[in-house]
Amino acid sequence: MPITVQFAAGPDLWPAYRAPLAEAFAEAGLDVEMAEKIAPEQVDYIVFAPGGTISDFAPYTRCKAVLNLWAGVEKIVGLPGLTMPLCRMVDPALTEGMVEYVVGNVLRHHLGLDTHVLNQDGIWRHNLIPPVARERKVTMLGLGALGAACGQALAALNFPVTGWSRTPKEVPGLTCLSGPEGLARALTGAEIVVLLLPLTAETTNLIDAGRLALLAPGAALINPGRGPLIDDAALLAALDAGRLGHATLDVFRTEPLPPEHPFWAHPRVTVTPHIAADTRPASASRVIAENIRRGEAGVPFLHRVDRARGY
Amino acid sequence: MPITVQFAAGPDLWPAYRAPLAEAFAEAGLDVEMAEKIAPEQVDYIVFAPGGTISDFAPYTRCKAVLNLWAGVEKIVGLPGLTMPLCRMVDPALTEGMVEYVVGNVLRHHLGLDTHVLNQDGIWRHNLIPPVARERKVTMLGLGALGAACGQALAALNFPVTGWSRTPKEVPGLTCLSGPEGLARALTGAEIVVLLLPLTAETTNLIDAGRLALLAPGAALINPGRGPLIDDAALLAALDAGRLGHATLDVFRTEPLPPEHPFWAHPRVTVTPHIAADTRPASASRVIAENIRRGEAGVPFLHRVDRARGY
Repeated sequence: MPITVQFAAGPDLWPAYRAPLAEAFAEAGLDVEMAEKIAPEQVDYIVFAPGGTISDFAPYTRCKAVLNLWAGVEKIVGLPGLTMPLCRMVDPALTEGMVEYVVGNVLRHHLGLDTHVLNQDGIWRHNLIPPVARERKVTMLGLGALGAACGQALAALNFPVTGWSRTPKEVPGLTCLSGPEGLARALTGAEIVVLLLPLTAETTNLIDAGRLALLAPGAALINPGRGPLIDDAALLAALDAGRLGHATLDVFRTEPLPPEHPFWAHPRVTVTPHIAADTRPASASRVIAENIRRGEAGVPFLHRVDRARGY
Repeated sequence: MPITVQFAAGPDLWPAYRAPLAEAFAEAGLDVEMAEKIAPEQVDYIVFAPGGTISDFAPYTRCKAVLNLWAGVEKIVGLPGLTMPLCRMVDPALTEGMVEYVVGNVLRHHLGLDTHVLNQDGIWRHNLIPPVARERKVTMLGLGALGAACGQALAALNFPVTGWSRTPKEVPGLTCLSGPEGLARALTGAEIVVLLLPLTAETTNLIDAGRLALLAPGAALINPGRGPLIDDAALLAALDAGRLGHATLDVFRTEPLPPEHPFWAHPRVTVTPHIAADTRPASASRVIAENIRRGEAGVPFLHRVDRARGY
């Protein structure tokens, strides 16, 4: 009997994923029958993305796991009937893309590159020599797969990196803090702050006026994580007051960010259009295949979501 | 008898270097008498920078070494009377600053950050997802202390880096080529090229029309090395034709770059004002002290210039 896999990530993604998934299943030695529509009671695994073809999991009575194509699961955990295991995507290419975006933008702020890119006016600003990275305090909020990889890449460039996570973690090369008091310590005096936290009830609006006030004067904030981690009004107020030097934002409460949103016109904000990390079909398909292999072998799934925590 | 050291790097640098050098000499256990003016025949070592107070070394009959404060020595090797050993500066902070500039600008081009920084116009350019670094071919010309360190930092971020040097070298993590045929191979199809070669008769105008034509269409060129490595007219022609995508230039034939120079106004050129690497007094002073210690102990100098090669 072949394993039945329903591709429920939507018709837009089907052409991009059909061949890479089939190839990954074959590579993993799995006999899979995959389709966009299968009778719910016959589905073994669901490949999922929010906005796809399933919004209620109750009819999927024999489904062994829901395998999400993206890293974020905040739009999935509350869906009705989701009693089977849910797995997040941790795509190696996604991690690489995120590391490149974070290191590139941290260095952009560290080196002050925008001043030169935006002012090719014939003025030789030789006084703008940046300090070396070992004199620049970076704080990474979130020490999951993405945050840890980014923090370590920054530490390899000599940045002193303080990492923070809700529960205690250890990441080699980083000063790791946790809990509410650790958060205040991690933010105090930080010159560049990167947000890579999961979105939960606790992390919504985490970056508010009080926490922004802890940063070093003129600090830069980089958010490639989730839009609602930031209290947008507090962010704009801190930027307007000049306390915060710059915000580079890749994620927003509404995407695409509407053209009339004040972030676009603000001189201290750089909007990037959700480019930090995009799941790549080839590598993501191999992760999906590995989790189906594990499900069939009775081995614990990779990247399984803890429903109580929400990620 | 104290060791006599003449600080001949000019009165502008004396205030910045006086205390750090004295501290470094004391740390190294050296009994040094340092001044801006000493009778030439009594000088044991010269701390030097071009444009300083010495242009003829003939009167320095007992001088054991000329210790340059900068990495580049092309303005020194031809000075009259320079028969004693000449040492370049290889400042660890200078190497760090260079690595940060090179990695920051390679990632800036790789990620296409300028498009976003320069166009905050409300258009959500989500189609501009960059490839991952492992799909981006980077070529590093020059595998000295700076080129090797930059190449390895880029390789650590997964960029496939091809390095080239005049004579064969091996740098772990890089594909290393050498000689004239190796140069053509290193440039062919390269998407981002970084110039960190010493300036010699052979490397002047190395980047000419023919070599620019070898690069991938739309490639980016980054020059934090020496201005005359590039044939400026050929560079402008390649940029105007759109064959070359962008040039980020930190060094120029004339510095400060005159306001009327076409590089400033060219939409495909980013001028940065020689910020890639600046010698730092504290770390540079420790290198000077170590070389004086070596000279006194009869141990070979660090970073001694080969006069025949010119670097």
